[in-house]
Amino acid sequence: MATVSPTPLLKDELDIVIPTIRNLDFLEMWRPFFQPYHLIIVQDGDPTKTIKVPEGFDYELYNRNDINRILGPKASCISFKDSACRCFGYMVSKKKYIYTIDDDCFVAKDPSGKDINALEQHIQNLLSPSTPFFFNTLYDPYRSGADFVRGYPFSLREGVPTAVSHGLWLNIPDYDAPTQLVKPLERNTRYVDAIMTIPKGTLFPMCGMNLAFNRELVGPAMYFGLMGDGQPIGRYDDMWAGWCTKVICDHLGWGVKTGLPYIWHSKASNPFVNLKKEYKGIYWQEELIPFFQSVALPKDCTTVQKCYIEISKQVKAKLGKVDDYFNKLADAMVTWIEAWDELNPSGDISAKIPNGASK
Amino acid sequence: MATVSPTPLLKDELDIVIPTIRNLDFLEMWRPFFQPYHLIIVQDGDPTKTIKVPEGFDYELYNRNDINRILGPKASCISFKDSACRCFGYMVSKKKYIYTIDDDCFVAKDPSGKDINALEQHIQNLLSPSTPFFFNTLYDPYRSGADFVRGYPFSLREGVPTAVSHGLWLNIPDYDAPTQLVKPLERNTRYVDAIMTIPKGTLFPMCGMNLAFNRELVGPAMYFGLMGDGQPIGRYDDMWAGWCTKVICDHLGWGVKTGLPYIWHSKASNPFVNLKKEYKGIYWQEELIPFFQSVALPKDCTTVQKCYIEISKQVKAKLGKVDDYFNKLADAMVTWIEAWDELNPSGDISAKIPNGASK
Repeated sequence: MATVSPTPLLKDELDIVIPTIRNLDFLEMWRPFFQPYHLIIVQDGDPTKTIKVPEGFDYELYNRNDINRILGPKASCISFKDSACRCFGYMVSKKKYIYTIDDDCFVAKDPSGKDINALEQHIQNLLSPSTPFFFNTLYDPYRSGADFVRGYPFSLREGVPTAVSHGLWLNIPDYDAPTQLVKPLERNTRYVDAIMTIPKGTLFPMCGMNLAFNRELVGPAMYFGLMGDGQPIGRYDDMWAGWCTKVICDHLGWGVKTGLPYIWHSKASNPFVNLKKEYKGIYWQEELIPFFQSVALPKDCTTVQKCYIEISKQVKAKLGKVDDYFNKLADAMVTWIEAWDELNPSGDISAKIPNGASK
Repeated sequence: MATVSPTPLLKDELDIVIPTIRNLDFLEMWRPFFQPYHLIIVQDGDPTKTIKVPEGFDYELYNRNDINRILGPKASCISFKDSACRCFGYMVSKKKYIYTIDDDCFVAKDPSGKDINALEQHIQNLLSPSTPFFFNTLYDPYRSGADFVRGYPFSLREGVPTAVSHGLWLNIPDYDAPTQLVKPLERNTRYVDAIMTIPKGTLFPMCGMNLAFNRELVGPAMYFGLMGDGQPIGRYDDMWAGWCTKVICDHLGWGVKTGLPYIWHSKASNPFVNLKKEYKGIYWQEELIPFFQSVALPKDCTTVQKCYIEISKQVKAKLGKVDDYFNKLADAMVTWIEAWDELNPSGDISAKIPNGASK
């Protein structure tokens, strides 16, 4: 515990959401950083299997039976046999902030050899403003040793609230199956010491491996879609959430940051399996990007929920003809919002009592 | 010469433009990197003063008398007693690419302690494509060890031609006078190992201290405005050029990169003098940014010149009421294009014979 500050930032305001199918031995490495926080573990796959969690962590765990019991028929919107199931954890959290991480992600080291406290950096990203309306060439102007450069309008220097902090990965890069196949040995060794706001109007590929967000602001937009078992597609869960969330943040005037912190991504997934999951997505994304680039949200969409329902309608109207899958997805988006509102009535996110296996 | 590759990139296709009022001793430090290239020196201020250039450099030098003689009455569009005069060098160049650098910029070192060949990095930036339509979270996908990440549409992976490469500065940051005054001791010590495309639709503060561009593509947009002697404003020359250029690149489908390479900026300019030059700009930029964010170029603006003339009209129509200065500036923008076309007839940029003091 020597490396942790005595009062960890946002200790009682942040949940760590981990989707998994295996014992969470990876938490040992994160112990100095994660132990003060509450974990929400979403167990994917066989619910009769027991997931072992290292001693000393404070957690609640939900398996598929829990999800079905808590959501009833609305459980259909939560993916099965795919890490997209993690978004169930966002829904049952009672906290203002979420950090989500994959169980094959380890602590990375900065160029000086020091362990990176990824969670602490995410929290700093979330607690400092974003600057989506004008690019700062020295990157995050709120970091120590940096500021806004000459020519940056003063009226924009207060920034806007930060909704999302997208962290990166050293070692195994987050490549699609074709790139994995072509460059099986490529590793990301470049530590880029930057955090930046993704400008308004610009879409990005949001990876769910090392991601934090302000649940109170954008939680209902962080739906990871229908992936995995019974679905024609996988590995687009976080992308979908990212595109929806970015469009909504742009509309509501919130910021999305990318860059630090890095985690160490230990294990490349199988590119042949990935190709099977992705191939429709690789084709569909050529339609999805122009779609999201042209989504226009009307002025009366003043809440994330209203924005999200509006996007679901446009998905049905414009992407339904690409594939019937998008009609199903649009319906699931509506179900997701209904379930979210049921578990989080009238914005009072502390009122509900989720009913998972708690420790 | 041991550190230079035997055949420097673009040796006969790039000019280095340097505005100055003093002897160019700073070139000694750049000798290994710059000596193979041709220099265009634009002497500002008193034309009777002799500027000494270190032995062994191939250069042409223009003072105010040369500018007046070559441009005649159109010389009014070239600023005097301000480094904005550098854009005259862009106009008389016969080359496809320009690199421009200030004479208080020295060779920086990378984190390993190696001298950074800024020019070589700029050339690599200009010769590799840009990706303005979608953000890549691993930054420049064309760099060694990097690629497009999962979720990046394949149809966008060829990228678009790069028009501008904006390099950064270690040591003295490029702050405005108020920030200089508030943070006199702040130094930029953070080496961010990234190059990125500034997304389409996003404006940025372009600094002219360490800048390269494809003159054949965007040369006529690189007008540094009316600054210095007889003008109510200074230190907005590069900003103006950057905003015009970015809007035109967005319209014509070209890319603008920022990031590496770094130079070492040695000397902070006087913040009190800067404040006097800037204070109107600080006020005006609050109008300028919304203006440039809303500039719409019609489809028939198919060349940089047509785009630029159109912008000059909109400047007059929309910014003339902010201050009469913008009416003068709009006229100077037209004069600049006329002078450019005179010196660079019918796109045949090698046909003209500029008439400066050559060595």
